[in-house]
Amino acid sequence: MRCSVLCVGTELLLGQIYDTNSTYISERLSELGISSFEKRTVGDNAERIASAVVDMLHEADALIVTGGLGPTHDDITREVLADLMGVDLELDESVASDIEAIFAKRNREMNKNNLRQAMVPIGARVLRNPLGTAPGLQCQLKVGGNAKTVFLTPGVPHEMEHILEASVLPILLSKKQDSNVIITRTLKTWGLGESALAEKLEEMVIQAETGDVKLGFLARGMNGIYIKLSVSSPSIEMAKELIVPIEEKVKEKVGEYVYAYDQETMESKIIDLLKETKSTLSVCESLTGGMVMSRLVEYPGASEVIAGGMVTYQTQVKRKFLNVQAQDIYSHECAQQMAENLRKELKTTFALSATGVAGPDPDGGHVPGEVYVGISSEEDLFSEEFLLGGDRQRVREYCTITALDVLRKHLLRGLKRPT
Amino acid sequence: MRCSVLCVGTELLLGQIYDTNSTYISERLSELGISSFEKRTVGDNAERIASAVVDMLHEADALIVTGGLGPTHDDITREVLADLMGVDLELDESVASDIEAIFAKRNREMNKNNLRQAMVPIGARVLRNPLGTAPGLQCQLKVGGNAKTVFLTPGVPHEMEHILEASVLPILLSKKQDSNVIITRTLKTWGLGESALAEKLEEMVIQAETGDVKLGFLARGMNGIYIKLSVSSPSIEMAKELIVPIEEKVKEKVGEYVYAYDQETMESKIIDLLKETKSTLSVCESLTGGMVMSRLVEYPGASEVIAGGMVTYQTQVKRKFLNVQAQDIYSHECAQQMAENLRKELKTTFALSATGVAGPDPDGGHVPGEVYVGISSEEDLFSEEFLLGGDRQRVREYCTITALDVLRKHLLRGLKRPT
Repeated sequence: MRCSVLCVGTELLLGQIYDTNSTYISERLSELGISSFEKRTVGDNAERIASAVVDMLHEADALIVTGGLGPTHDDITREVLADLMGVDLELDESVASDIEAIFAKRNREMNKNNLRQAMVPIGARVLRNPLGTAPGLQCQLKVGGNAKTVFLTPGVPHEMEHILEASVLPILLSKKQDSNVIITRTLKTWGLGESALAEKLEEMVIQAETGDVKLGFLARGMNGIYIKLSVSSPSIEMAKELIVPIEEKVKEKVGEYVYAYDQETMESKIIDLLKETKSTLSVCESLTGGMVMSRLVEYPGASEVIAGGMVTYQTQVKRKFLNVQAQDIYSHECAQQMAENLRKELKTTFALSATGVAGPDPDGGHVPGEVYVGISSEEDLFSEEFLLGGDRQRVREYCTITALDVLRKHLLRGLKRPT
Repeated sequence: MRCSVLCVGTELLLGQIYDTNSTYISERLSELGISSFEKRTVGDNAERIASAVVDMLHEADALIVTGGLGPTHDDITREVLADLMGVDLELDESVASDIEAIFAKRNREMNKNNLRQAMVPIGARVLRNPLGTAPGLQCQLKVGGNAKTVFLTPGVPHEMEHILEASVLPILLSKKQDSNVIITRTLKTWGLGESALAEKLEEMVIQAETGDVKLGFLARGMNGIYIKLSVSSPSIEMAKELIVPIEEKVKEKVGEYVYAYDQETMESKIIDLLKETKSTLSVCESLTGGMVMSRLVEYPGASEVIAGGMVTYQTQVKRKFLNVQAQDIYSHECAQQMAENLRKELKTTFALSATGVAGPDPDGGHVPGEVYVGISSEEDLFSEEFLLGGDRQRVREYCTITALDVLRKHLLRGLKRPT
């Protein structure tokens, strides 16, 4: 089973926006053992779209197209597919009412353009899109005498992802010949670079080149480096038997840097740990400017354990509002006072703080990237210093994940501590 | 002059890394008025690379290939091009000594693999790479009886970018027939959907299809919808003469929704307005959880005008810490008290607040997406209500930009107000 990916959009071709959709699709296909053969990007041009679709289907069994399903004049993917299928477009009443419902829910008036999105090639199957006004479509095409499948998905990432997961991938899996399952395990690490990880895991990397279990590294910016294990096997049980011992070996070598697995994130991990220990958290941020807090409250139910926080950005705010006495605002002393004073103010179990120099320029004799993370609780008050690389935004992001990682390790120690 | 882009790398095809190279190349090509015709991505497979190169050169005059120039066994782009050119590879002494020098500089021992990177197809032109061990290569190919040019560049982004800027683009420009310059103008809007914008601008959209000035829409998530005007013209002066009247017409129709131009952002705009009026700002956030503040302090120098803020996430924190009396925490009253009380606490010129239901579930009879934005200053105290669509994260992002836009409009009114 070969499935290729076609991105449609002049803005992609002109480099006006980054293509994250094809990366997401490719990653999911490979996780499911469906080989992705080729990716292409073409502009909003009927002839170019049509020739790419036909050309790619000479080699692939299926094609996932993303983009060109919008309401405006330059969104023509629907029309191109109808032409290739040799059919007309007709208004799909159920899609039309979906679209009307979305506008009603948003208290916005629907204009006639939007009904273009309810036009469906006769014979195509509608893949519902609860997140937006452009439904996905499954179309059958004959290419070189063979029946091929084309999936049309919107270019809006979260809409495309929903339709891919809910409709496209299940349909592809049902068509897949070899019944092997692919099991993947992702170990998310923070604190070591890719080459340092590779060196510590060299033995396993070499094994993986010939063995059943594949091992790869994915650099994920402020989410660190992911170690990805994957194995293809006739059954889930057999796959697990193969993957578990390798995972154990990896943990032996670099377990201390692993902060989460698979769907877990640093934030979900911390919220789980806080709930587990019936603790509450407040956060006092300087250079991160609210990024730590903002990431923690991404999670539904965060309000159970995340009380609130302060962004003491200007020095006088640290002093007047939070009574920070430390002379040097880039210091262990300042980080600890920020955490201690906020925890007492908000009466939370823990308080986390971050102060430092985001850059681009040094400040008061401190270099950009010099940051201090503080933690306060009834029992403990401490801080750690880090020197982070990169530009201003990168320093702020790395400081955010570093602060969360310091808290995570502290919460884990607390669980282990005899009471 | 048509130039297409080919990315080589199985890791790209498997979605293990994001492709930023082709976006960078496409953007630079379009800025220089060289049309980018198509983008493709193939794995590290000789047959696939060869057929993509030939296939793409049937339509394009030149091709930029990125990736597959590394030292390892799966880096085969050099060999594939030599085959297509019908020549052998030979060791280029100058490249070999460049590579040796780089290893010496890094105090690392060179292994023989690395000399593979000094192998050059006979007749190809070396494009020096001071940043790494893989030089770029310019190769001539005959396709369909026509002479075509293929540029090979490394996959490492900063190395590719250097070779592109220093060698590839100058060579392409020298081959370009028309010496037209491309001028673009981006109007960034918030508050109207793409289809509503398209309808208000329908007249200009239709004109653009036949006229010199092209008009396009880019959906940029929490940054709204960008209206992009572009024109190709023999001189910058002539280009401006063409684009300015169209821009004026667009502003007549939708000017109230335009928050920034070109490189400006909502945040930079607000920080400029605060500096211009010598004002300071504090922010009190509930559902956005620090996102408003975090975006504002992305900018160097933000600390001049951004004092700090609070994330009053839990209700009791709003009450105890900020003395919010409002019964209903999702209300105009609450948003106004949050802003008013924080402004007085931090003694800033303005305070901005946001409260509402992020979801996924309704709360206290309020639906997800119901948000209130408050603004307080010496002269004014008001709030606005919005109903935002999307999932939890989207509601939080849209609330962030909506709050910033309310502040932006208020600051502009202040500038116009007689003093």
